[in-house]
Amino acid sequence: MPTTTPAIAAPAAGQPLAPTTIERRDLRPEDVLIDIAFAGICHSDIHQARDEWGGSTFPMVPGHEIAGVVAAVGSGVTKYQVGDRVGVGCMVDSCGECEYCVAGTEQFCVKGNVQTYNGVGFDGEVTYGGYSRQVVVKDAFVCRIPEGISLDVAAPLLCAGITTYSPLRQWGAGPGKKVAVVGFGGLGHMAVKLAAAMGAEVTVLSQSLKKQEDGFKLGAKDYFATSDESTFDVLRGRFDLVLNTVSAKLPVDAYLSLLRVGGAMVNVGAPGEPLEYNVFSLLGGNKILAGSMIGGIAETQEMLDFCAEHGVGAEIETISADRVNEAYDRVGNSDVRYRFVIDASTIGA
Amino acid sequence: MPTTTPAIAAPAAGQPLAPTTIERRDLRPEDVLIDIAFAGICHSDIHQARDEWGGSTFPMVPGHEIAGVVAAVGSGVTKYQVGDRVGVGCMVDSCGECEYCVAGTEQFCVKGNVQTYNGVGFDGEVTYGGYSRQVVVKDAFVCRIPEGISLDVAAPLLCAGITTYSPLRQWGAGPGKKVAVVGFGGLGHMAVKLAAAMGAEVTVLSQSLKKQEDGFKLGAKDYFATSDESTFDVLRGRFDLVLNTVSAKLPVDAYLSLLRVGGAMVNVGAPGEPLEYNVFSLLGGNKILAGSMIGGIAETQEMLDFCAEHGVGAEIETISADRVNEAYDRVGNSDVRYRFVIDASTIGA
Repeated sequence: MPTTTPAIAAPAAGQPLAPTTIERRDLRPEDVLIDIAFAGICHSDIHQARDEWGGSTFPMVPGHEIAGVVAAVGSGVTKYQVGDRVGVGCMVDSCGECEYCVAGTEQFCVKGNVQTYNGVGFDGEVTYGGYSRQVVVKDAFVCRIPEGISLDVAAPLLCAGITTYSPLRQWGAGPGKKVAVVGFGGLGHMAVKLAAAMGAEVTVLSQSLKKQEDGFKLGAKDYFATSDESTFDVLRGRFDLVLNTVSAKLPVDAYLSLLRVGGAMVNVGAPGEPLEYNVFSLLGGNKILAGSMIGGIAETQEMLDFCAEHGVGAEIETISADRVNEAYDRVGNSDVRYRFVIDASTIGA
Repeated sequence: MPTTTPAIAAPAAGQPLAPTTIERRDLRPEDVLIDIAFAGICHSDIHQARDEWGGSTFPMVPGHEIAGVVAAVGSGVTKYQVGDRVGVGCMVDSCGECEYCVAGTEQFCVKGNVQTYNGVGFDGEVTYGGYSRQVVVKDAFVCRIPEGISLDVAAPLLCAGITTYSPLRQWGAGPGKKVAVVGFGGLGHMAVKLAAAMGAEVTVLSQSLKKQEDGFKLGAKDYFATSDESTFDVLRGRFDLVLNTVSAKLPVDAYLSLLRVGGAMVNVGAPGEPLEYNVFSLLGGNKILAGSMIGGIAETQEMLDFCAEHGVGAEIETISADRVNEAYDRVGNSDVRYRFVIDASTIGA
């Protein structure tokens, strides 16, 4: 018998989210039933609830930044037991057999990974995300949230955390390295905390200096406004890594000019429009422009362990379920420091 | 007393090259006087002789693919002696003290490296290149041409060779790796030979199939026409590395789609116009877009040694000095297989 659980859903593209109930499947041998404690609001939830990327299906229960506690396990689950603190991110399944799955990069599964919501499982069922009281997820896609991080500040780590952790690791953020974080929002503030915890020297590049104090508090050593043209002269050739968390069209050549020889600018934000660059901006210094999409499950666990060890969590504003639509509007206006987290106990309460 | 030596010079932008004489400086303690045997014609010679990149100074003696024999050495030179086979590439000096020089990447010297021609030395003197009978170069910027490569096929290695060798090495071309070479001209044919010698599986992506037989002969396993749209479907997700040697505006997203997860497209050609890309093309597979500019002196020596060991030289058409202008026109029409090399003994003869 499937479990019925309260949830918040977008009934159609762009419609306000509203309370509803959904069914969660009976536990299969490898399944974990999770009592959700908190669900982060990611900007991509809003894009998809408004069908801004196309291909959305409704009703939609968003949410891929899930933190909670194991309520039951299937007969074959040995990794988790009832009471364990766990998290679920952007994926809930993949083929498990292709070279990318075997390599621990399930996000690039050749059959396509199954998205936590607005996806379709290999069983043909539509997936519903974390804006609900309970969720059933295959154990291989469940991560352990270590003691020492509370569940509310852990929830956003499952997307914003891994999305920034993975490129910082891959591109060598650490002692002796100078890292610029472009944009200081949900992703950007995590990037600052993580890069600082990795030992890098972090500079924030934000449109204005409005959040400068926060930047220093979270670990940045410098904070510059990109609206000030002199910023690009002052910082020319300074950085080993520029992590771009902004989903808007940026002047790529100007940002590439901030890199040292051999440096990399890595994009995790996804603007809808094409970007332009001059090849000379790459040639003159063997520079690199790259993209990075979330991270694999093992790397997500590594990130959670790293965060516990270094006391890193998201900066959050916790809201009750009835304030989700207001929160969506505020995210659109960049009016959040720095991530909304829904208290799942208020869903259907 | 400076040495007077015959040369071929462009008297002004776009003017036909003509015979002349130039002076080479007296040997300083660290200088090597080289009797030039062959000088390759690089496309960038033509761009600069026609002032297509701006900033050219005239008269200009082009040529930065120089192979010859040591004729004399300064009092402080211990590395070379008279009779040694040597080569000179794109640079003849750099500060030697900055972090990039110390790291062996003199091409990125913070004071600017001194270009072999159309440059200005730290002594304030304009530099003249390899289209001449003799040249004087600081020993640190002279490479040894190993026995086993004849000087004519070695000359183009000093630019076309290192320009392709460096990114192939940096981005891991080798056994088990699939490398696509875009463009099959002066740079492209060297890339095919070098990548094949490194043990990679090489595919040529050329506009047409005209030179397909040559491609196979030089080591390619596959050869596809980019004018055939099905090429991009057939090769989707195949390559670890796409080395783009073309100096024209390409559809970047289409080429990125040919990469595997984590793969890199590296540009060594330099189109004048900006290129466009969609960030999703990088995100969906953690892909990389990079640039690479020649290589340092130590790496150039490594490349020459590698070429000698693997029997790799350029495919050349040797011409006499009086055919340089004709050769320039033919390069513009892609009518060369694959590099013109000037027989320096015909200069001023």
